Amino acid sequence: MTDKALTPYQQLELRFKRLSALGEVEAVLHWDMSAIMPPGGAEARAEQLAELKAVQHSLMTAPEMADLIGEADSGLQGWQPSNLREMKRRWVKATALSEDLVVALSKACSTCETLWRTARPEADFAAVRPALEEVLNLTRQAAVAKAEKQRLSLYDALLDDYEPDGRTKDIDPVFDELEAFLPEFLGLALDAQAARPDPVRPEGPFPIPSQKALGVQLMEALGFDFNHGRLDISLHPFCSGTPDDVRITTRYDETDFTSSLMGVLHETGHALYERGLPKPWRGQPVGKALGMSIHESQSLLVEMQVCRSQQFLEYAAPLMKAAFHGDGAAWDVDNLHRLYTRIEPGFIRVDADEVTYPAHVIVRYKLERALIEGDMEIADLPGAWNEGMEKMLGLTPPSDREGCLQDLHWFDGAWGYFPTYTLGAMTAAQLFEAAKKAVPEIQPGIAEGDFKPLFRWLKSNVHGQGSRLTAKELLIEATGKPLDPAVFKSHMKARYLA
Amino acid sequence: MTDKALTPYQQLELRFKRLSALGEVEAVLHWDMSAIMPPGGAEARAEQLAELKAVQHSLMTAPEMADLIGEADSGLQGWQPSNLREMKRRWVKATALSEDLVVALSKACSTCETLWRTARPEADFAAVRPALEEVLNLTRQAAVAKAEKQRLSLYDALLDDYEPDGRTKDIDPVFDELEAFLPEFLGLALDAQAARPDPVRPEGPFPIPSQKALGVQLMEALGFDFNHGRLDISLHPFCSGTPDDVRITTRYDETDFTSSLMGVLHETGHALYERGLPKPWRGQPVGKALGMSIHESQSLLVEMQVCRSQQFLEYAAPLMKAAFHGDGAAWDVDNLHRLYTRIEPGFIRVDADEVTYPAHVIVRYKLERALIEGDMEIADLPGAWNEGMEKMLGLTPPSDREGCLQDLHWFDGAWGYFPTYTLGAMTAAQLFEAAKKAVPEIQPGIAEGDFKPLFRWLKSNVHGQGSRLTAKELLIEATGKPLDPAVFKSHMKARYLA
Repeated sequence: MTDKALTPYQQLELRFKRLSALGEVEAVLHWDMSAIMPPGGAEARAEQLAELKAVQHSLMTAPEMADLIGEADSGLQGWQPSNLREMKRRWVKATALSEDLVVALSKACSTCETLWRTARPEADFAAVRPALEEVLNLTRQAAVAKAEKQRLSLYDALLDDYEPDGRTKDIDPVFDELEAFLPEFLGLALDAQAARPDPVRPEGPFPIPSQKALGVQLMEALGFDFNHGRLDISLHPFCSGTPDDVRITTRYDETDFTSSLMGVLHETGHALYERGLPKPWRGQPVGKALGMSIHESQSLLVEMQVCRSQQFLEYAAPLMKAAFHGDGAAWDVDNLHRLYTRIEPGFIRVDADEVTYPAHVIVRYKLERALIEGDMEIADLPGAWNEGMEKMLGLTPPSDREGCLQDLHWFDGAWGYFPTYTLGAMTAAQLFEAAKKAVPEIQPGIAEGDFKPLFRWLKSNVHGQGSRLTAKELLIEATGKPLDPAVFKSHMKARYLA
Repeated sequence: MTDKALTPYQQLELRFKRLSALGEVEAVLHWDMSAIMPPGGAEARAEQLAELKAVQHSLMTAPEMADLIGEADSGLQGWQPSNLREMKRRWVKATALSEDLVVALSKACSTCETLWRTARPEADFAAVRPALEEVLNLTRQAAVAKAEKQRLSLYDALLDDYEPDGRTKDIDPVFDELEAFLPEFLGLALDAQAARPDPVRPEGPFPIPSQKALGVQLMEALGFDFNHGRLDISLHPFCSGTPDDVRITTRYDETDFTSSLMGVLHETGHALYERGLPKPWRGQPVGKALGMSIHESQSLLVEMQVCRSQQFLEYAAPLMKAAFHGDGAAWDVDNLHRLYTRIEPGFIRVDADEVTYPAHVIVRYKLERALIEGDMEIADLPGAWNEGMEKMLGLTPPSDREGCLQDLHWFDGAWGYFPTYTLGAMTAAQLFEAAKKAVPEIQPGIAEGDFKPLFRWLKSNVHGQGSRLTAKELLIEATGKPLDPAVFKSHMKARYLA
């Protein structure tokens, strides 16, 4: 697979193209596992994924890689230096880990995830605790190894996997500011909400085929291309697949279409980002999505900034009404807007509104740091979780099902991921504000179902940038400044206190 | 991935376990591509499959493999010598080919298959001809390389990929005997059929959900475990997946349930073979299905020998009638049996009855040998196809859609595969005859929907044998003799002339 006539950099491009294809294969296997695999396939699938990980790891850590990486740094042009930077990041991370650890971690995650799938509905933390301890143990071993190579703290080394160049020292002040702002703001927003009429819920049943048809209609309006993607059903909605075959999932509730619909629009935001990644960089690290805060900013920009807005509902309310042959005041734009911006503190992160969501994230962020840094044991997790929820939202989960068992992340080995949700929400607000300022046609377009002006701006400022910049640089280029909590706060005030 | 404390043979087992997992990954990708992938994903999927092939090839041809293979041959026990034999077969084949050829062939097949998908409905052979020429060209290069290493003829080297130890010198006399027998037999069988009342077709429409429910019911009765498998829809029915997650597909016609149902039962035969492979040998070459003639014998034993029999229809006719709320003489066992054993010469192999099917295969067998051995050009294929069909069945296809474009095989690189269909049909007859002799409960069981006695025998004599024996040895152990066309002929006489 090497050709001596190629420069070291060109040889690296070939190698990373292969790694990218194997990464896509992994994405297809994960999609399949989450969406349609029969339960009895789990054990063999875990084996397949572990072997695939091992193969990628061994390609990445091949002895000649060090020389190629060392010699690649000359004569590079355009996006190539950024590509080399991302190649190095991946290589450094990979060489920090032994193949045995990679395989053990992959298998431990598959095992733990399988146990979690029954432990969660049964609220049985004890049943999954040993497996989770093993995942944490192996994750910490990986963190120690990567932290040493990357000269980072344990937590930052994990965070960097999801948020390249993301650091706790940058997150802490932002989260501190939110933590100081939110409790008082929540009270004010709830007061303002109480002063407005309660929204009326449209009455079902809402047949699943009609829900799906409406979802497809709005996905297509936003620009989703079904020649390059799918919409399916899964217990936990997600976006997966590859840029040329992006797959999102949802779950339907025949008594309430609103939550599934917003979920579909949220995942469509993720999907359009993947589809919009620069085609000429396909298969190279620089052509990949930048990181999870930018990814989440694209789903939340679509869902929270656009689709829960008055403008969007002016366009979409008649379509919703027609889809379900609705009748009455429940289908009015103002009512649907009140419904879609309703605040209600609760136990479950994925059901949380925009105002209380950061509280869920901050609780998890603190807990996972303590666990990774060795300041806490898994045995203490359920209690600490409940304390955190009590402190942040004044709520104590009735059982671990509504507590520390609710999210897959830790059980599947995704440690250091949670903060990206709230970073994404803030990034979304900041990008949308800049977009609206730069392109006056965006908001009137939304009210008419014309999303082209918005996505032209996003394509040029976000999607088409791949991983050329860091998240901070991208934000500065696109909005003129790094992440600024003030923008998120003023969005919240405008929406919830007006 | 190697451990010096392991023997060479044990190291090989580890390596083949990894290769097996990657082969399973490939099967999942193929299933996905054929059943649910959006069309726009084709190009990226071709890349993924080619890279996966390259990775497998490079693992198989790693320099240390020669030593391991050379030193593995001592102290082996039980099934291990058979495993080593199959390891060697795979290794010899793989080392015959360069990685460049493997990748080029994988991509050429993906490209050609994609073109075929539109060329076929449009009966446009010219549109796919250059791509098919490239597939043949690369396939011949592979055949030359493998033939040299395995000391086989070009055609036998390809045949050996699908039918280990299958040789034209063994197939030719068998096919010659069939070719001599069938034309006269077909005339006699058609006369006998004309002397019986014409079967009445049950009248539809047959709603797809009811067809699916009936298919599932009969699959489960046969022993298909939906915890370890799926039933989906695809244009071309197939069985794929992995032993722990076997997936079959069908296509439904609302005006006729009979063809889809037999297709489902056919694929169930394939699936039960995969599921029944010996679990302790999972991941090793000896644990794989033996070859395509045995695989096809399992689908045809279920479909042709069992499910088109009077006994099976005694059990299934009432279920069919109930599934569609049927009424009248069309649902009588005798009528359904006449329908399910109807002979009707036609253009399309997959729609062919048991009597005319071998003619379709023999035409293809002769053509692909001539093409592989360089005695014919792709340009001459449509004409030669039509001549063959005229000679064997007295029919000339109205267009290439009903002619040489009908089957995917050659366009997807499967050369040397076709004879296994008819070898499978004959093997099925021979195995079923032996099973019935050995276990008197089998036939009464079938009439009552109890298939356990049959599958106990198959598990012990076929499924559970994996690749321990060659097909010939397996047949001798299970039936007392090698493949004997007389058994197939007497099955045909009993069914069609009685």
